[in-house]
Amino acid sequence: MTGITTQGEKRLVVVTGRAHTDLAEDIATELGTELVDVESRTFANGEIYARFGESIRGADVFIIQSHCPPINEWLMEQLIMVDAAKRASAKRITVVAPFYPYARQDKKGRGREPISARLVADLYKAAGADRIMSVDLHAAQIQGFFDGPVDHLFAMPVLLEHFRLKLDSANLTVVSPDMGRVRVADIWSDQLEAPLAIIHKRRDPMVANEVTVHEIVGDVEGRVCLLVDDLIDTGGTIVKAAEALKANGALRVVVAATHAVFSPPAVERLSSDAVDEVVVTDTLPLGDDKRFEKLTVLPIAPLIARAIHNVFQDASVTSMFDGAA
Amino acid sequence: MTGITTQGEKRLVVVTGRAHTDLAEDIATELGTELVDVESRTFANGEIYARFGESIRGADVFIIQSHCPPINEWLMEQLIMVDAAKRASAKRITVVAPFYPYARQDKKGRGREPISARLVADLYKAAGADRIMSVDLHAAQIQGFFDGPVDHLFAMPVLLEHFRLKLDSANLTVVSPDMGRVRVADIWSDQLEAPLAIIHKRRDPMVANEVTVHEIVGDVEGRVCLLVDDLIDTGGTIVKAAEALKANGALRVVVAATHAVFSPPAVERLSSDAVDEVVVTDTLPLGDDKRFEKLTVLPIAPLIARAIHNVFQDASVTSMFDGAA
Amino acid sequence: MTGITTQGEKRLVVVTGRAHTDLAEDIATELGTELVDVESRTFANGEIYARFGESIRGADVFIIQSHCPPINEWLMEQLIMVDAAKRASAKRITVVAPFYPYARQDKKGRGREPISARLVADLYKAAGADRIMSVDLHAAQIQGFFDGPVDHLFAMPVLLEHFRLKLDSANLTVVSPDMGRVRVADIWSDQLEAPLAIIHKRRDPMVANEVTVHEIVGDVEGRVCLLVDDLIDTGGTIVKAAEALKANGALRVVVAATHAVFSPPAVERLSSDAVDEVVVTDTLPLGDDKRFEKLTVLPIAPLIARAIHNVFQDASVTSMFDGAA
Amino acid sequence: MTGITTQGEKRLVVVTGRAHTDLAEDIATELGTELVDVESRTFANGEIYARFGESIRGADVFIIQSHCPPINEWLMEQLIMVDAAKRASAKRITVVAPFYPYARQDKKGRGREPISARLVADLYKAAGADRIMSVDLHAAQIQGFFDGPVDHLFAMPVLLEHFRLKLDSANLTVVSPDMGRVRVADIWSDQLEAPLAIIHKRRDPMVANEVTVHEIVGDVEGRVCLLVDDLIDTGGTIVKAAEALKANGALRVVVAATHAVFSPPAVERLSSDAVDEVVVTDTLPLGDDKRFEKLTVLPIAPLIARAIHNVFQDASVTSMFDGAA
Amino acid sequence: MTGITTQGEKRLVVVTGRAHTDLAEDIATELGTELVDVESRTFANGEIYARFGESIRGADVFIIQSHCPPINEWLMEQLIMVDAAKRASAKRITVVAPFYPYARQDKKGRGREPISARLVADLYKAAGADRIMSVDLHAAQIQGFFDGPVDHLFAMPVLLEHFRLKLDSANLTVVSPDMGRVRVADIWSDQLEAPLAIIHKRRDPMVANEVTVHEIVGDVEGRVCLLVDDLIDTGGTIVKAAEALKANGALRVVVAATHAVFSPPAVERLSSDAVDEVVVTDTLPLGDDKRFEKLTVLPIAPLIARAIHNVFQDASVTSMFDGAA
Amino acid sequence: MTGITTQGEKRLVVVTGRAHTDLAEDIATELGTELVDVESRTFANGEIYARFGESIRGADVFIIQSHCPPINEWLMEQLIMVDAAKRASAKRITVVAPFYPYARQDKKGRGREPISARLVADLYKAAGADRIMSVDLHAAQIQGFFDGPVDHLFAMPVLLEHFRLKLDSANLTVVSPDMGRVRVADIWSDQLEAPLAIIHKRRDPMVANEVTVHEIVGDVEGRVCLLVDDLIDTGGTIVKAAEALKANGALRVVVAATHAVFSPPAVERLSSDAVDEVVVTDTLPLGDDKRFEKLTVLPIAPLIARAIHNVFQDASVTSMFDGAA
Repeated sequence: MTGITTQGEKRLVVVTGRAHTDLAEDIATELGTELVDVESRTFANGEIYARFGESIRGADVFIIQSHCPPINEWLMEQLIMVDAAKRASAKRITVVAPFYPYARQDKKGRGREPISARLVADLYKAAGADRIMSVDLHAAQIQGFFDGPVDHLFAMPVLLEHFRLKLDSANLTVVSPDMGRVRVADIWSDQLEAPLAIIHKRRDPMVANEVTVHEIVGDVEGRVCLLVDDLIDTGGTIVKAAEALKANGALRVVVAATHAVFSPPAVERLSSDAVDEVVVTDTLPLGDDKRFEKLTVLPIAPLIARAIHNVFQDASVTSMFDGAA
Repeated sequence: MTGITTQGEKRLVVVTGRAHTDLAEDIATELGTELVDVESRTFANGEIYARFGESIRGADVFIIQSHCPPINEWLMEQLIMVDAAKRASAKRITVVAPFYPYARQDKKGRGREPISARLVADLYKAAGADRIMSVDLHAAQIQGFFDGPVDHLFAMPVLLEHFRLKLDSANLTVVSPDMGRVRVADIWSDQLEAPLAIIHKRRDPMVANEVTVHEIVGDVEGRVCLLVDDLIDTGGTIVKAAEALKANGALRVVVAATHAVFSPPAVERLSSDAVDEVVVTDTLPLGDDKRFEKLTVLPIAPLIARAIHNVFQDASVTSMFDGAA
Repeated sequence: MTGITTQGEKRLVVVTGRAHTDLAEDIATELGTELVDVESRTFANGEIYARFGESIRGADVFIIQSHCPPINEWLMEQLIMVDAAKRASAKRITVVAPFYPYARQDKKGRGREPISARLVADLYKAAGADRIMSVDLHAAQIQGFFDGPVDHLFAMPVLLEHFRLKLDSANLTVVSPDMGRVRVADIWSDQLEAPLAIIHKRRDPMVANEVTVHEIVGDVEGRVCLLVDDLIDTGGTIVKAAEALKANGALRVVVAATHAVFSPPAVERLSSDAVDEVVVTDTLPLGDDKRFEKLTVLPIAPLIARAIHNVFQDASVTSMFDGAA
Repeated sequence: MTGITTQGEKRLVVVTGRAHTDLAEDIATELGTELVDVESRTFANGEIYARFGESIRGADVFIIQSHCPPINEWLMEQLIMVDAAKRASAKRITVVAPFYPYARQDKKGRGREPISARLVADLYKAAGADRIMSVDLHAAQIQGFFDGPVDHLFAMPVLLEHFRLKLDSANLTVVSPDMGRVRVADIWSDQLEAPLAIIHKRRDPMVANEVTVHEIVGDVEGRVCLLVDDLIDTGGTIVKAAEALKANGALRVVVAATHAVFSPPAVERLSSDAVDEVVVTDTLPLGDDKRFEKLTVLPIAPLIARAIHNVFQDASVTSMFDGAA
Repeated sequence: MTGITTQGEKRLVVVTGRAHTDLAEDIATELGTELVDVESRTFANGEIYARFGESIRGADVFIIQSHCPPINEWLMEQLIMVDAAKRASAKRITVVAPFYPYARQDKKGRGREPISARLVADLYKAAGADRIMSVDLHAAQIQGFFDGPVDHLFAMPVLLEHFRLKLDSANLTVVSPDMGRVRVADIWSDQLEAPLAIIHKRRDPMVANEVTVHEIVGDVEGRVCLLVDDLIDTGGTIVKAAEALKANGALRVVVAATHAVFSPPAVERLSSDAVDEVVVTDTLPLGDDKRFEKLTVLPIAPLIARAIHNVFQDASVTSMFDGAA
Repeated sequence: MTGITTQGEKRLVVVTGRAHTDLAEDIATELGTELVDVESRTFANGEIYARFGESIRGADVFIIQSHCPPINEWLMEQLIMVDAAKRASAKRITVVAPFYPYARQDKKGRGREPISARLVADLYKAAGADRIMSVDLHAAQIQGFFDGPVDHLFAMPVLLEHFRLKLDSANLTVVSPDMGRVRVADIWSDQLEAPLAIIHKRRDPMVANEVTVHEIVGDVEGRVCLLVDDLIDTGGTIVKAAEALKANGALRVVVAATHAVFSPPAVERLSSDAVDEVVVTDTLPLGDDKRFEKLTVLPIAPLIARAIHNVFQDASVTSMFDGAA
């Protein structure tokens, strides 16, 4: 056989954009490695530049970015890094987007709207991404927007572990703040062996963030209520739900969510007396202005690191979430 | 022949993002129509939403956006509008980007860099754009980055018309501030029948905006010097060139450029005594903070409107620029 | 200008597969035209053949197929027709799939599953479809699975018109048989100005069609209950819901659904005393074996015909559904 | 070099659809492994579901399906499995279709026909297949329909080995039942060192399966005739050929074909006295209703297994067929 | 409705490469128009340049090229013209290749071969072609190589018309020089109501142009033999066939073929006494060195012009060939 | 884990077209291997055939071709080889084009022109190339034309090494023959620590190769002038530059270029007394008719071989050119 034959090797490389470097460093540490250095800059007119500090030729590259505001900047930075990785002959490029950008624009609610969550998948593909890894997608159908494998991770094991130590399930009720979230709350109630309650509210499609709480379905009087959601943006829904629970005799209201978007005035709202505790993960950066006394932040890095390790080693990611998905 | 047969019609629709609505309105006015209304919004966490206010089904849609800072916001808004237009059954979608974003990142200068100008072309394609229209691309090769027609317009006729009235070519010298711009200056010197001078300077690739002026090639003493460039960003190059010209005995220094990026401290720099006049077009918005006494802004809308009209009517765009390209 | 210039025309062509020719004929009649003849055959080994009976060159072709069992046969027949239309130089090809095949497999519920609803969109694209038209998608996100325009029609106006004549809203309660359908029921309750009730049940993901009814949320005693859903497959969910409603004192139970899949033993189940009336549309064929006394079938052809007409004439489709979407 | 480096491994995985599990099991046994378990189901309305029973991440996956009736069901099942494999991060996906579906619709015989054999290649590609492996394609040009490697296997070595033991070439004549098959018959006559005869017949393109036998070219009187073809569908061609041979004095007529489609009334026809023996392979399943006394079925699994092994090990497949292709 | 609405028009444009300008001019004349001027040049190092002389924006462009030697030059010139047309905003681009290049490399005969006929289809697609028009493809399956419409024209009506006037069918026998061409000869014999004969020969796949004539099937003694083929390359096959026919008592041998490739020593061979007349079309240019006394060249331009006209006018092309395909 | 697991290996394969086999053999020798044999042929009508002599399944294949005249032949041959490699299951295909074909047609200078350099990138992609390797692209932006990694090598280290031994930098001036080449000359002057001069000339875009020398910028009197360019085609530009230098008192004129296209009458021109020495590399073949006394040819094979080795071994290519790019 003519030619040169040699043993195949594979190399894992983790890099990050500038949105949330702490998370990326934690992930690298969990993996037992270091981030490959990236020279990142924003020019005077707002254009972004990114260059890998060392060769990534032939590597299995994971490009981490957290999509907090300014969300379009960070999305564009990540796309530019994907382009650079493609041109630098990376063997495989996985976009790690713990909080998938534009996840809530996942369908045409009215005519002549975009489907921006699909657009984002197409942009990643166009830039050169082979795979996507994300945590708790707003709608599971978003997996179908990308033409390739999507590793959909669930933060629930991380959150559950916390609550199992902290909360007594005997007096606990799991509450869904929203009809759309009831399926998730259902799994929580199974896992914690606690009853379920639902808050029936409607969002006005014409007015952003305007919410009307209707009624509480289920028994909450004298109970510790665990309100679960995938994300907290301005906090309106959650806090109105908490107020309704308290008004209906709830003993305590604990809020659990994966993604702490915390757009203003979320911090102010969550500081309401109606909310006794808020537990989130750090898929998004939480600067000092987003921290408050009742807030507990659980690290998501171990979960993502394990998933990256398994993807690199061709081990199963699904098996990390036996009960959850 | 079974079925229903009817006469074909075609409809031109012009819409705009929020970056520079004045320009888009001027273009619509020149065309003798109005912009189709777009419902545009930025949510609390920075995500952008855009929806067309009326049906654009079957229309020839031109989506105008000027890529000033925050450039990634406006790029993303335009991509979202393209996606919405595609899903709203537009017949043909033309991206109008008077100042092509990321045009200066058009090649790999060093290893492991992105080619962001190509990436931008790919993103437009992925979103659903059929065509691109732009003014004075930083490198003409960018036309080759897009897999489809690119209408490359030239602002020179607009600028030339201004100078022909204002400047006496007898005492005029056209000056290129840069080796890379010498070809453009050459055409100017042909058009104005004025001699050419060149400033030999090098940009340090490792440090943004740092410029070293070397020497002036050609005769400038006692002459009115017309410094021509495609864009003025922070103004460093141009002002150092102007200073060198004055130091070498230039009588007056007039600056002409298509794109007034004017990143800080451009306004401060251009207010230098070395510069006597600055003439630009309004491909980019120029708020009050970017206006100064010596500045003349020429409207680019008539040129773009004519090009849009010709594209819609299947007339030639090239013929608009007999001498220039 | 060298060459030959002539006036443009456009031609609408409607064709159908063999699954539900009655519907296609009704649509053509509503449009005031006839179906273009298709020579369709299934060979001895099960392979399908389809050929257009006259030229469709340059035409705007709508290929109608209803995806009843054997669903894969009819999907493949439609794909073959799309391929033939592409090769016969159709100008634009719209797949009309009143009941989108595999709509319920719209996400990965567990690891190593397909997302067949996305696969179907990809197959249509690969065959050559430019657009898709469908009625009441199981999840609106399916629009995002196709890389092109999707006309999403709503049967609600058709059903509402029927009920407005038949039912007295004073004594009416709209009931969602399922947490996932509550948003649809909500719109019905708005439209009919009737209160809402919800049935909380869970489907076991490991066992098809097994359903556990939990509880009724809202007041149904002594009321006429209108159970609304997008589709009725084997009828298990609906009939258990009806039984629960009757057990809780409902006066009458009327069932409304768009898609009458009616897989066995749906007819048997729906004949139960718990159900007083069933109203569906004919997006799917309903042979004599699927007809029963309590069943009312409303024609969907006028709605689809109007949408096809509007698409062909570049008129708005959204405006057909002011209140609904 | 930053990151984690490890030794590369590769893993072969074989799975099967439900059409012909015996063949797939035989192939796995030949390879010295077992099929990876697939959870396959057909829902009440005919939709198919398939899920891999264990992780196939990073594996070289071969998805076997035999395309017997209901052929569209089995094609769709295979496409769904390809989609699932793609989303489950298989490294490479090879479709193994021993009998390529729709192979006979490989060109437009008349206007406005599909080219379904190309469509099938496009569907495999759209679903995510990287490669195709097939046996004795009806037209070798089908290889050019797929945008990627096609491993084209030949059953002739399997069949030849059988006949070399059974038939005395001294008295043998190889007969082509059809003008289109004469090239194959030619190779057989070379390999068996036997003379060639041809049957000139025409198929009416407007009427399926109608065949007119014209004449026999070559000497068959008193000889053992070996009729060779790539497939036997309803058996009409072959049996009329056999009858013609017998009518012209043939001593015995032995039929050899790779693909035993055996659509009704093939079994009845082949039981005719004109046919003395029929030898086929098991690329398609042969249930008891398709077995008859004169039939010999040779196993194709060893050939396919060897090809899969060679593909996995980067060894040559062509070298398996020195004389044949 | 906001925007500008106007009547749609369509424009037909015909251009040509430099291989066979006479044919293109004849086609234009038949259409009643003129060729749009193309500035074509070959630079000193062999690179080709092509530029359209006037605007073709929005036009239905037909790019004609005949693929005679140097075939790769002409293919590349045509690809360059397609690229230029795409970038010049042509509405639709049809490649007119009367003799499809590389048509004979339509399958992998041996391992590790290209399928160059498919490659050519892919190159046309990559350059921007929407459609292909060709005459008498070597294998009809080549239609399936292109992802889009292929107009497959047949020269037979042109040739038949000639022979109906010239030959007396009473004494005529149609002869296929090759097993692969027998289907074509069959149609000829039907059309001319003349008996059929076949020449059984084999081409050695390892040695180009080496041919072994075996035997004549059918009655040729004392008859006028019409040898029909799709193309004549070096003429070896045809002349050996003619010699065999004469040796078997044929009265006259007339040769008919669509494509006169006439590679050396075709002219010399065809001047043999065995051949009495050769009739071809001018799909390929026939310079003086390729003309000889017995040769009749029929014009193909009327046929191609009619097909172009019908494509432009959305009329049927198939209907031009009722009996032939 | 079901299936078969084995150790991964990788194999490097180098093959070549027929344009410049010496170079390919030198590269193979430098790599310590041999070229895999290719059966290449040109048929009588100009069609090219290529087949790999042994299995390349799973290999990392580098397909070398030098694009000298007849450039379209060699381009087509390389495309055919890429197609064959794709269908032969190569793992990765890298096109090695030391002199990128059509590099000078990298933009639309006038309307309705092609961008042939982009077209070439698209053709490589369509045929199946994963990567491109080239030396000294005429414009670095060409990297952005290909949708994948491009290894851009620089011949400067090879040339510099030669001149460092041969020339005394004390008396040396680096001269750019052209405004477009001044950036390259700049790097040379840095590397050799010699002053820079520029020749201002303009090429008439309407007339190929016509050149007007204007003036010399910088001091050349009494100095050794090193004229640097990326390529020498007909030699017109270079020789006129040399004459101008001599006329202005240059002591000696040495010419350095990477690509020796040497179209007639380059050799004649370069033999002019104005030129004292010409140094090029062998990226293009230099037959005896292109050799002349003053010519020195430096081998490029070591550079390319090192780059291939590094690509195969996932080592950095950029690091080979610390100072140059």
